[in-house]
Amino acid sequence: MTSILLTDLYQLTMAYGYWQQKTYQQPSVFHLYFRKAPFGERFALAAGLQTAIQYLENFHFEVEEIQYLASLTGYDKKRLFDESFLNHLQRIKFQCSVSAIAEGTAVLANEPLMRIEGPLLQAQLVETALLNIINFQTLVATKAARIVAAADGDAVIEFGLRRAQGADGAVSASRAAYIGGCVGTSNVLAGMLHDIPVKGTHAHSWVMAHGDELAAFRNYAAALPHNCIFLVDTYNTIEGIKKAITVGNELRAQGARLIGIRLDSGDLTALSIAARTLLDAAGMHDASIVASNDLDEYEIRRLKAAGAKINVWGVGTKLVTAYDQPALGGVYKLAALQDQNTQEWAYKIKKSEDKAKASLPGILGVNRQLDTLANTCKDTIYHTQKNKINEAEGTDLLQVIYEKGKLIYTPPTIAETRRQAMHEWQIFSGLTGVNVGLDADLQELITVISD
Amino acid sequence: MTSILLTDLYQLTMAYGYWQQKTYQQPSVFHLYFRKAPFGERFALAAGLQTAIQYLENFHFEVEEIQYLASLTGYDKKRLFDESFLNHLQRIKFQCSVSAIAEGTAVLANEPLMRIEGPLLQAQLVETALLNIINFQTLVATKAARIVAAADGDAVIEFGLRRAQGADGAVSASRAAYIGGCVGTSNVLAGMLHDIPVKGTHAHSWVMAHGDELAAFRNYAAALPHNCIFLVDTYNTIEGIKKAITVGNELRAQGARLIGIRLDSGDLTALSIAARTLLDAAGMHDASIVASNDLDEYEIRRLKAAGAKINVWGVGTKLVTAYDQPALGGVYKLAALQDQNTQEWAYKIKKSEDKAKASLPGILGVNRQLDTLANTCKDTIYHTQKNKINEAEGTDLLQVIYEKGKLIYTPPTIAETRRQAMHEWQIFSGLTGVNVGLDADLQELITVISD
Repeated sequence: MTSILLTDLYQLTMAYGYWQQKTYQQPSVFHLYFRKAPFGERFALAAGLQTAIQYLENFHFEVEEIQYLASLTGYDKKRLFDESFLNHLQRIKFQCSVSAIAEGTAVLANEPLMRIEGPLLQAQLVETALLNIINFQTLVATKAARIVAAADGDAVIEFGLRRAQGADGAVSASRAAYIGGCVGTSNVLAGMLHDIPVKGTHAHSWVMAHGDELAAFRNYAAALPHNCIFLVDTYNTIEGIKKAITVGNELRAQGARLIGIRLDSGDLTALSIAARTLLDAAGMHDASIVASNDLDEYEIRRLKAAGAKINVWGVGTKLVTAYDQPALGGVYKLAALQDQNTQEWAYKIKKSEDKAKASLPGILGVNRQLDTLANTCKDTIYHTQKNKINEAEGTDLLQVIYEKGKLIYTPPTIAETRRQAMHEWQIFSGLTGVNVGLDADLQELITVISD
Repeated sequence: MTSILLTDLYQLTMAYGYWQQKTYQQPSVFHLYFRKAPFGERFALAAGLQTAIQYLENFHFEVEEIQYLASLTGYDKKRLFDESFLNHLQRIKFQCSVSAIAEGTAVLANEPLMRIEGPLLQAQLVETALLNIINFQTLVATKAARIVAAADGDAVIEFGLRRAQGADGAVSASRAAYIGGCVGTSNVLAGMLHDIPVKGTHAHSWVMAHGDELAAFRNYAAALPHNCIFLVDTYNTIEGIKKAITVGNELRAQGARLIGIRLDSGDLTALSIAARTLLDAAGMHDASIVASNDLDEYEIRRLKAAGAKINVWGVGTKLVTAYDQPALGGVYKLAALQDQNTQEWAYKIKKSEDKAKASLPGILGVNRQLDTLANTCKDTIYHTQKNKINEAEGTDLLQVIYEKGKLIYTPPTIAETRRQAMHEWQIFSGLTGVNVGLDADLQELITVISD
């Protein structure tokens, strides 16, 4: 679902306006950023760039999309768009330059995660889809990292497909959750599309279909002897654990083993302690205890503090919907516009009565000074055209992704991105100071413009 | 994104188990229902059936999907699935019968929104995607109806794409929001795919690109004279309103008119009152005042109570993510299984230690007795094979959608579904009694099975 029409109508009416007034090719600069990190964190994990690239690689209008636009009318029932504009759209090719912070990087409020430079019409048109993609995946990667941190070394598996917000709300959540540190997903399509390990064994219905729980476990073991994690709470959990152990002994006799059991209801602390005792008594020290049932980072911490003997956490709804904050408020703001005649840049700012909604002008970069001795990270948003920042003083976070419409970035594999994300999360979680500031040139620019 | 792999891996491992033990063709019955209406409501608006049909119409495995499944391994790194099973999947055709409650119907906790009857392997395999689709669209249609009710006759437009949970989290939210009573969406792709009116004019960037607000409005009016709703808060809202009126007067001189203004920040009550006064003084009584900025049903009620003169509400994030409850906990439970030899039905129940998680056995129908004189609705979940309910006593809510894999249902248009949904919402909101019960035969069945 990477259609170019995945956009707000106003992007197209504005595009039409730029077309009509012949400013559609005017060089422009937009930044994508969020104003506040989610979940009360000081930072978020950037995610979604690879999906954004897939969207930009598909930047074109299909014939039926043009036909649809031709059918649209305004408040007077007359056609919204004329033929010359639609012909322009039909021939359009992506010409923008795009810089972005790599996926899996810890990012702070107000710093550009993406900078889009190019013809005003095009740079404006991609706003909505880029926000949709980056907002959601950044949110879920960050949520996943929080949950993985709470699990404190235990594996976290993402199980959220059935409660996710639509098909792609699930698939892109699986992707972001994996980047954030989950070990896999139950979502087979996400596994195929994004090269994520897929996990799962059976549901209550498997046991109910057999009626007899022992027969259900035996039949599963007969079909999939090397994939046995039995769900033990269909009828009585303790009895279910005992039957899983019976089949575990039978598996052992065949050279296989019980991989684990899964608890999905009841008092997870008491039941997991009982399960551990029973499994250990049977010599099944390596059998995992998987738990699911409305888990999130708070519940995982609570269960661990209570002494639960769970070592694999299946997390669904609250992860894939980012239940306690289901949206990240990322924005996409015009920051500079070049005069088509003089080639001079005019820097743009949105002065809002609501101060938090004001935007930064310029063509911006982000310089990061991570000091692992002082345990601090100091990011500086700087005015690239008057850059006085010495590269040696830090790292430029924005990498070039597109040069005038040409993709020049070779993305890392998702596994590499995940490793980077987990590494960044660990470092940033331990920092005592995490700050983002503006360089002197940018501050001066704001002062000049605001007057 | 209607791939058959949009499912949990355990559906496929169970399918493999059924295949191996040769019960994959065993006739089975599953029900899809929710246990609690969302947002503290007594009911929800069913939505998503049409999307579910699109998914079921696409029930087949692509070659690359089979290849992907062939590549999957279990904990021992051996292949999960054998060739005979994959060959079966490659040839599979949907053979289930499906009944469902029509979209736009008010539905209560525990009553089946869908009943799937057919070969165990197939009826199980569709679980996850059906839940994903029905859970989310039912949630958003219900949220939209609450927001539309708060707007009390004013138009509500859905603006959520940029903050939605992925592409489809946006597109299917736009669809459900329209069914729930919104007048349109900003999402152009949703408009094209689902025949929803699309709405929108311009963003702050349009004004910022011009620098001069009056020039920005004039240029917009020159390009789109019949689509002018000016966003007035880029710099100073009151000044913005005055400039919109200036251009409104110019439009009037050309035989067009100012359709409205939009407020997106600041004190919406005070600003809308000021805007109304200024617009009325200019004779622009028919110019709308559109508001956006983090709106939901609570904020709309608060603004109305405070005397805000807003008559079009642009609602985004909190609608499309159902922000205060971003998931509906619908489930899909096995309820009956036929013996392949004796043809006898065995009725299934999940007896849970967690009582709320217990499921209903049988092959179930829902009979609705809506008494508009007594102002009550009494639904009865009944055991269809021992049905003693007289059709004259009520309406059967479940309609036949598929008969043994063949689609026999002609869905209404989305506009018809929307009208029905708004009608049902109005009726059900006014009822003093809304109850769902079980018929005597079903109660007896539960007693017998639970022993």
